[in-house]
Amino acid sequence: MARINGARLMSDLRELAGIGAFQTGVDRVAFSEPDIAARRWLVEKLRHAGLDAAMDRVGNVLGRDPAAAKTVLIGSHTDTVPKGGWLDGALGVGYALEIARSALEANERHAVGIDVISFQDEEGTFMPFLGSRSFFADVDDKEIAVAKSKDGAALTAALQTVASAPPPHRFDGQRQVCYLEAHIEQGPRMEAAGQRIGVVSALVGIRRYRILSHGAANHAGTTPMAMRRDAGSALIELAAAINGEFRRLADPDTVWNIGNMIFRPGAANVVPSACEMLLEFRDIKAEVLDRFEERFMALAAIANRGGVGIEVESTARIPPTAMADNLSAAIAASAVAHGETPVHLPSGAGHDAMVVARFMPAAMMFIPSIGGISHNVAENTSDADIVFGCDVLADAVAQVRREVV
Amino acid sequence: MARINGARLMSDLRELAGIGAFQTGVDRVAFSEPDIAARRWLVEKLRHAGLDAAMDRVGNVLGRDPAAAKTVLIGSHTDTVPKGGWLDGALGVGYALEIARSALEANERHAVGIDVISFQDEEGTFMPFLGSRSFFADVDDKEIAVAKSKDGAALTAALQTVASAPPPHRFDGQRQVCYLEAHIEQGPRMEAAGQRIGVVSALVGIRRYRILSHGAANHAGTTPMAMRRDAGSALIELAAAINGEFRRLADPDTVWNIGNMIFRPGAANVVPSACEMLLEFRDIKAEVLDRFEERFMALAAIANRGGVGIEVESTARIPPTAMADNLSAAIAASAVAHGETPVHLPSGAGHDAMVVARFMPAAMMFIPSIGGISHNVAENTSDADIVFGCDVLADAVAQVRREVV
Repeated sequence: MARINGARLMSDLRELAGIGAFQTGVDRVAFSEPDIAARRWLVEKLRHAGLDAAMDRVGNVLGRDPAAAKTVLIGSHTDTVPKGGWLDGALGVGYALEIARSALEANERHAVGIDVISFQDEEGTFMPFLGSRSFFADVDDKEIAVAKSKDGAALTAALQTVASAPPPHRFDGQRQVCYLEAHIEQGPRMEAAGQRIGVVSALVGIRRYRILSHGAANHAGTTPMAMRRDAGSALIELAAAINGEFRRLADPDTVWNIGNMIFRPGAANVVPSACEMLLEFRDIKAEVLDRFEERFMALAAIANRGGVGIEVESTARIPPTAMADNLSAAIAASAVAHGETPVHLPSGAGHDAMVVARFMPAAMMFIPSIGGISHNVAENTSDADIVFGCDVLADAVAQVRREVV
Repeated sequence: MARINGARLMSDLRELAGIGAFQTGVDRVAFSEPDIAARRWLVEKLRHAGLDAAMDRVGNVLGRDPAAAKTVLIGSHTDTVPKGGWLDGALGVGYALEIARSALEANERHAVGIDVISFQDEEGTFMPFLGSRSFFADVDDKEIAVAKSKDGAALTAALQTVASAPPPHRFDGQRQVCYLEAHIEQGPRMEAAGQRIGVVSALVGIRRYRILSHGAANHAGTTPMAMRRDAGSALIELAAAINGEFRRLADPDTVWNIGNMIFRPGAANVVPSACEMLLEFRDIKAEVLDRFEERFMALAAIANRGGVGIEVESTARIPPTAMADNLSAAIAASAVAHGETPVHLPSGAGHDAMVVARFMPAAMMFIPSIGGISHNVAENTSDADIVFGCDVLADAVAQVRREVV
């Protein structure tokens, strides 16, 4: 079995958490001072471990195994959401650092080495997956020119702060043969079930809609029920029908959400003249998404038949991302070898692996998150689970290195 | 038959509409300059007609028949909502002026005369029904001391502007024997059915509630459906159940409204942690309101059984107000004498008659409103319907004066 140093891993993760520390979490949004400091910290750690490492002018940190012509790429991201948790992204980078370092220390002969990466702005402060998209030359200058944060700060201005760094690191298809990323689950399932290793079956596809209804504002005391065009109740009844039908149509892991409704004018004694609703659903199978969409559109068409007009606007359409079977099998086999039965589960959230998988085989491993808390300073995982996860991933990487050629 | 002067009535109503004119309507909120100007205009008109008239220091205008010991009180209010219509309130005051004036001109011998009133602030700019409540000595100084407009203006400051006027007019139970008020319908029923005279069967009772749900905000991609505490869908399903059950339980004239829902945090990808909903229902029968409330509470209790907590807060509870049968019969008989079959219908909105009826017999007559528009500059009724309504009310008043002893 591969030997990693659990104490060193924990020490590194805690050191990294100290850069941009905020309460019990970290605030290290992309291109902020602590974000760049964390990336420079990682470069130093990688160099110290014996890798050729640098931060490029996008903020991506790549550490290359100096002795290898082919490598397994491991990593995640070190940027966070505002007031985020200490493990999101950082965990996967810490694992990659420790696994690459241990492998170099072991000094075994291998045809396939390990490269380490920390992608920039996975969290989308300026542009979601900027770093992984840049790595695959999948962003054009026009997109970068117009990208802005929620606060209106321009990505171009942020990029100026690292303009003196080397040109962007790019994916080398002759060198990096596959990608592995570890992450906390960001959901409650594994902890609730007492599971320590999750093999991500796929990253879910997402479809998101804004639904608008148009009726007429009337006095709610003097307008008989039969003479109303109630834009509020039209969407209330559509929403209830969606919940009922989706329950019937769902696969075990399908999720959906009615995240918002806004009523206008919104007074107790006025029949709502207009209403807006946000709906999304996620699943790992395109056919489930198709089934949901078809049923939803049919329900909206029925709702549109009364005196209230219904409009449906599609606001996001992200296809599911499959993971590479042989890589997932390596993670599962490693878990079993460590005495743990792995759970196969979808990732309901997006990750850099979603971008990477379009260009090379990729897989993801989850460890549990206490209470399923994520994107919050209360996010945490026990030290034992963190170290155990690194052990499992290290052996999975070792197996992949042996099998590739 | 009593003779009223339709041309003079229309001329007076148009003159009154010129005071505070706004587009095709009027903006004459209580205690504004145009409101007080309209009240002074009315005092002059009443005096010119031969009544003893004055505005008191609340803003109420009372015109007293100088020759009578007993009177029928007729009137409504001349204040409006902001950017309101030209007939709401003004119509009933115009009718009262014309009917009292015509009666004095006819110079017939009657034991029972006519008093005319325009109540202050029916629309509740500072305090709903301030004028009618003051007339019956039903407001205490503490209420007045704290009353404020939506803009934060104090009622006490508004009252200062008329502080030099005489002490409040008060109801004299030996003199005013009953009350009649005419109003536009403020709803679409009469116009849609081609009906010209409505006899108000009762003013509806109103029950109003704020419903709060408390769940947990979770990532809508990573939290399985079974592990959610979705405060939004809990109220969506309660609201849909309310609509379904209320349809089944409603009398023909019962109305209800879900006027607002607010979701928190209100993002597409976050399971709603909290939701708020406004519900009201109205009917002329207390037993219908009781039936609705009982069913609503049962549905809320069912919704409360899941992981989401439901709280119900009662925010308004106004009992139905019955009208005096003999007065309503006089209006109906007058309509029939004029060749019109009257329609009996509830008033879904509040009126000064609601306050008055607690202290003396009262009745209300409706005329149609084009398109049911109310509290809007587009509010209108044909001249023919306005004059016809005054003719009908004049004869109803004549009959009541004959029948009273």
